[in-house]
Amino acid sequence: MLALVLERKNELNLRDFPIDEKLGPNDVRIRMRTVGICGSDVHYYTHGYIGKFVVKAPMILGHEGAGEIIEIGSEVKSLKIGDLVCMEPGVPNPHSPELMIGRYNLDPEISFWATPPFHGCLRPEVIHPEQFTFKLPEGVSLAEGAMVEPVAVGMMAATRAGIKPGDIALVFGAGPIGLVTAMSALAGGCSKVIITDIQQPKLEIAGTIPGVFPVNTVNEDLTSVIAKATRGRGVDIVFECSGNEKVAAAVVTHLRPGGTVVHIGIPLENVSWDLAAAIVKEARIESVFRYAHVYPKALDLMSSGKLNVKPLITHHFGFSESIAAFDFAKNMPPNGIKIHIDMDK
Amino acid sequence: MLALVLERKNELNLRDFPIDEKLGPNDVRIRMRTVGICGSDVHYYTHGYIGKFVVKAPMILGHEGAGEIIEIGSEVKSLKIGDLVCMEPGVPNPHSPELMIGRYNLDPEISFWATPPFHGCLRPEVIHPEQFTFKLPEGVSLAEGAMVEPVAVGMMAATRAGIKPGDIALVFGAGPIGLVTAMSALAGGCSKVIITDIQQPKLEIAGTIPGVFPVNTVNEDLTSVIAKATRGRGVDIVFECSGNEKVAAAVVTHLRPGGTVVHIGIPLENVSWDLAAAIVKEARIESVFRYAHVYPKALDLMSSGKLNVKPLITHHFGFSESIAAFDFAKNMPPNGIKIHIDMDK
Amino acid sequence: MLALVLERKNELNLRDFPIDEKLGPNDVRIRMRTVGICGSDVHYYTHGYIGKFVVKAPMILGHEGAGEIIEIGSEVKSLKIGDLVCMEPGVPNPHSPELMIGRYNLDPEISFWATPPFHGCLRPEVIHPEQFTFKLPEGVSLAEGAMVEPVAVGMMAATRAGIKPGDIALVFGAGPIGLVTAMSALAGGCSKVIITDIQQPKLEIAGTIPGVFPVNTVNEDLTSVIAKATRGRGVDIVFECSGNEKVAAAVVTHLRPGGTVVHIGIPLENVSWDLAAAIVKEARIESVFRYAHVYPKALDLMSSGKLNVKPLITHHFGFSESIAAFDFAKNMPPNGIKIHIDMDK
Amino acid sequence: MLALVLERKNELNLRDFPIDEKLGPNDVRIRMRTVGICGSDVHYYTHGYIGKFVVKAPMILGHEGAGEIIEIGSEVKSLKIGDLVCMEPGVPNPHSPELMIGRYNLDPEISFWATPPFHGCLRPEVIHPEQFTFKLPEGVSLAEGAMVEPVAVGMMAATRAGIKPGDIALVFGAGPIGLVTAMSALAGGCSKVIITDIQQPKLEIAGTIPGVFPVNTVNEDLTSVIAKATRGRGVDIVFECSGNEKVAAAVVTHLRPGGTVVHIGIPLENVSWDLAAAIVKEARIESVFRYAHVYPKALDLMSSGKLNVKPLITHHFGFSESIAAFDFAKNMPPNGIKIHIDMDK
Repeated sequence: MLALVLERKNELNLRDFPIDEKLGPNDVRIRMRTVGICGSDVHYYTHGYIGKFVVKAPMILGHEGAGEIIEIGSEVKSLKIGDLVCMEPGVPNPHSPELMIGRYNLDPEISFWATPPFHGCLRPEVIHPEQFTFKLPEGVSLAEGAMVEPVAVGMMAATRAGIKPGDIALVFGAGPIGLVTAMSALAGGCSKVIITDIQQPKLEIAGTIPGVFPVNTVNEDLTSVIAKATRGRGVDIVFECSGNEKVAAAVVTHLRPGGTVVHIGIPLENVSWDLAAAIVKEARIESVFRYAHVYPKALDLMSSGKLNVKPLITHHFGFSESIAAFDFAKNMPPNGIKIHIDMDK
Repeated sequence: MLALVLERKNELNLRDFPIDEKLGPNDVRIRMRTVGICGSDVHYYTHGYIGKFVVKAPMILGHEGAGEIIEIGSEVKSLKIGDLVCMEPGVPNPHSPELMIGRYNLDPEISFWATPPFHGCLRPEVIHPEQFTFKLPEGVSLAEGAMVEPVAVGMMAATRAGIKPGDIALVFGAGPIGLVTAMSALAGGCSKVIITDIQQPKLEIAGTIPGVFPVNTVNEDLTSVIAKATRGRGVDIVFECSGNEKVAAAVVTHLRPGGTVVHIGIPLENVSWDLAAAIVKEARIESVFRYAHVYPKALDLMSSGKLNVKPLITHHFGFSESIAAFDFAKNMPPNGIKIHIDMDK
Repeated sequence: MLALVLERKNELNLRDFPIDEKLGPNDVRIRMRTVGICGSDVHYYTHGYIGKFVVKAPMILGHEGAGEIIEIGSEVKSLKIGDLVCMEPGVPNPHSPELMIGRYNLDPEISFWATPPFHGCLRPEVIHPEQFTFKLPEGVSLAEGAMVEPVAVGMMAATRAGIKPGDIALVFGAGPIGLVTAMSALAGGCSKVIITDIQQPKLEIAGTIPGVFPVNTVNEDLTSVIAKATRGRGVDIVFECSGNEKVAAAVVTHLRPGGTVVHIGIPLENVSWDLAAAIVKEARIESVFRYAHVYPKALDLMSSGKLNVKPLITHHFGFSESIAAFDFAKNMPPNGIKIHIDMDK
Repeated sequence: MLALVLERKNELNLRDFPIDEKLGPNDVRIRMRTVGICGSDVHYYTHGYIGKFVVKAPMILGHEGAGEIIEIGSEVKSLKIGDLVCMEPGVPNPHSPELMIGRYNLDPEISFWATPPFHGCLRPEVIHPEQFTFKLPEGVSLAEGAMVEPVAVGMMAATRAGIKPGDIALVFGAGPIGLVTAMSALAGGCSKVIITDIQQPKLEIAGTIPGVFPVNTVNEDLTSVIAKATRGRGVDIVFECSGNEKVAAAVVTHLRPGGTVVHIGIPLENVSWDLAAAIVKEARIESVFRYAHVYPKALDLMSSGKLNVKPLITHHFGFSESIAAFDFAKNMPPNGIKIHIDMDK
């Protein structure tokens, strides 16, 4: 079938690609309708690897997908032909101990779309397990469905934080992950979210989200903003989404005693960490690696209107323009957040 | 000073009442501005007792108050004269073990406004500890401030529930506590709340809250509503606000396996409890008794617009009309939720 | 193969019974060596059903087993031929949502040994998934291995309780489940366990466990024992193991404010529950249904000597004497706790 | 009164020292009987400061104390003259927000014995609040009572870890804090504790504790020890007690996915932290600063025999020999753990 294939670093082809997949009794076949481009897709394109994951053979890109069920396995009960769905791109080993304890995202053997050696979903059809395929509820579009994947990271962070109703959060970094984390934190119970960045266009987008208070740390004093917002106590929760080593090193500065930090951004280098500062506050430090169990919850929040991701979809391309889409993504303008590929075009 | 005094069951006087209180170094003096009437105030009026709490001597009523600081003690730092504030009505023994572990609401020696033998706040002035007095943030009115007390019960329930972002909740009972619990659950992270009652006017009010889905159990099938809303799984959280023994006995019926029940309503009689049904689902069953630590969080949610309690304030009286207000409250019409007394009138 | 078959209520046969099982790639074949008799086995024998589970066709009994690996599937990695092992008797549906969230014991489709319609392990060989088969660590005998099943219930209760180091617990009921719960609570962090019963022989056995303080509620004053043991505060945790409706109704009486109750015993009738008493203490009420994830932890505690279950094995029979063993179990003397069947005899 | 006074760095005097203290209604007066010497006492002696705490005026040393009640305030209920007691050395501001939420140890205004500018307990008498004074239960000696303070740090770490019954822990550092942490972890539910150090004498002492497995990382392979002990999974909990920057940087290496780290040791320098390694395992990282709420629990564990600290008391001096005791402590031999000063001698 026709697929967007990363042949090797810097070489993309939209070409016929044979896939040998069989529909199992617990699988569904999905016609892809919308696929978002993630920073990791672009990074594989421009670098050929992420960390230890190296593209050694041609690989189909794309893991943020939504589509329509066109065939179901003999044991499938919760889905039927014609259902519009979105899919978790990672499928764990059913025998992994991590799955058994409810943390399948930590399974080191997980097969994850567009992470070598596993193919992604920038192709007309995929076969996927029923367990990881979710029907879009009323009022949630295919475009929103394709947004569930990036939103899931924010949802996972908001879940891991253990937000108490009315908590005040600080988000470092107003990129796509910072934005979905801020949105998820608000939908998930925070009263307000202060978000920082050093790029003004990103902060302006952030500022359009009700409940989000952007702070440009180049020229604003974060300390006084937080003192005012929190009665001088410090924030209840810090979400580190910048992936910047220096930012990650200072996560407890604005935290209240006994507060929680959630690391989402993964710095490339080690962090010079003032552990003593964390100990004096007895900070609880958590992190999220991808996500687990949050897809249906993200869909319900979208359906109820509490999570409005539409403004994050800033650019559209057709499947036939996929390579152009990736080249555009390589040089994303500052006001660009998410590119969607319409698989029907 | 002039105060609304419950002399004994069924006898209220608005009369001069001597109060001997001294401003301590950590206290503030507050001119009362708005006081809400709670069902418990009315119950003391009509019955002379609640459970083991018996009105044995004249007692000033009222515990849902907001006002203005007019004097501060020598050690007070967070408040100043002129601040508009609301107050937690319960002040625990500072040496109680419950306070030490962060659960001061469970202190059996707590002194709580308008709970015998402690006087309430339906009077021109009160003295209160700084620790339990909270400045109203920008945009929160005195009327909203006086709503924090009933809202705090809902906030406590939502906090105790341990809501995960996107959870779906079921609230039994659409009275004032059911409504503030539904609102708090939504502000606190739920995607949607199904609320039940048998009185249609209450459900109609509930239905005006975005995210709340009212079900009249007289003529609607709750089971199918929940199956549809939860993909056949059952709700994540049940809030029991009816205080009805039969309802409280059936809290796990619609709960998903591993879900959580929070009891807020206190039935007068024992509940005939199908414990086996709870065990098979390993339901976690929690309850809340008043509240602790939620006032600032409720204020922040109100300030941010996530908790809009204004529609719940349905009736107003002046302080000089206090007795009439209580007589009105005795026979509250079905569309009445909260009566506020304007202390300046 | 030769198996102990419950033909119908009151009729047991030790006879040849054809079993059609195939070794899958993730399975192991185990030669049974030791099988304990559980109260539920006896109840099926004497009543033909437990709750909704009815013996409608001949069924092999036994679910507390230990044995030796004699064959392994092609994908098995953690076990090898000759390993001595014990087995979790319940195998959930791998696609169940309960398994996905780490609570496979709540899967309503779980296949559980000797629960109709699933056969048990009182037979020479069983095939079982690697995931639910656990190698006995050094120093843990086959007899102890066969004890892991009943101990797992106590371990699950101790785990669910969320014991903090040094907590004081109260266990209602000194039968086998009460004893393993008391042992697990002590191994799991409690400083002491008060256990109650009305049968003196059971309490005498309980009293031999270091850290366990037996109280005969017929002639001792539990209230004063607990006041003395807990500085007048009440216990941190109550484990209800009696399954008695009246006991289950009074679980919060001796609990400290903010304490935890874990229900293990399942009463046959509804419980007349004083919910108000639970609310005033904000008791957290949990329950356990069988167990999940505790087998390796029980084995490690046995191996380290912190969990000594040997004194609980009070009687032994050979496989050829199985029917006699069950008839003995029907009228278990008061000092009898656990009967083991030696499958080699 | 006669007191051990640190006049300034390197200068100790046992001399008369006037203390102006009044017994409040909630206070008790205690005749000191036994006081342990802590590393921090010695550090103030040899350096004159710890971090930001600088000895600017003569200060009485000592904060690990036990004694006998000789006078009680008018409101004291739980203690009486003649009671043997131990005392938490830190008394928080009763109005601190940290105390209100149950975390009084985080109160920055806490007054803590022998932390400048607060005097310690190496003197004949102290006045202390009832709330922070604990009666020694039957069978717990004054010497053990004086051990509760250092043990409390280990107890706090074990509590914060959220140990599940049967968890396996790794402790870095076999000094006094490492040892009490290992003991607390075992008493608090762990099945076994692997402890590492590079000094063999310390490991030999550690090895005498049942359940503790010492590993000398100079010549033993920790990775293989842990693989064997944990079925190849990694430990459930890591306690970092070394305070060494390099050790603290590697806390997740041996942790299982989803495991917990508790930092107790406070490194002097920043830690070069491989955050990515923590994220991939979604490690929960906690820390403890002193302790809260653990004194009664430590006493109960000592009383029940689960926490045997007697072997840790390796040296004794009389009060009149205090200066010699501190000079000995400055050059503690490798097999020395805790020095006790007998205040009656």
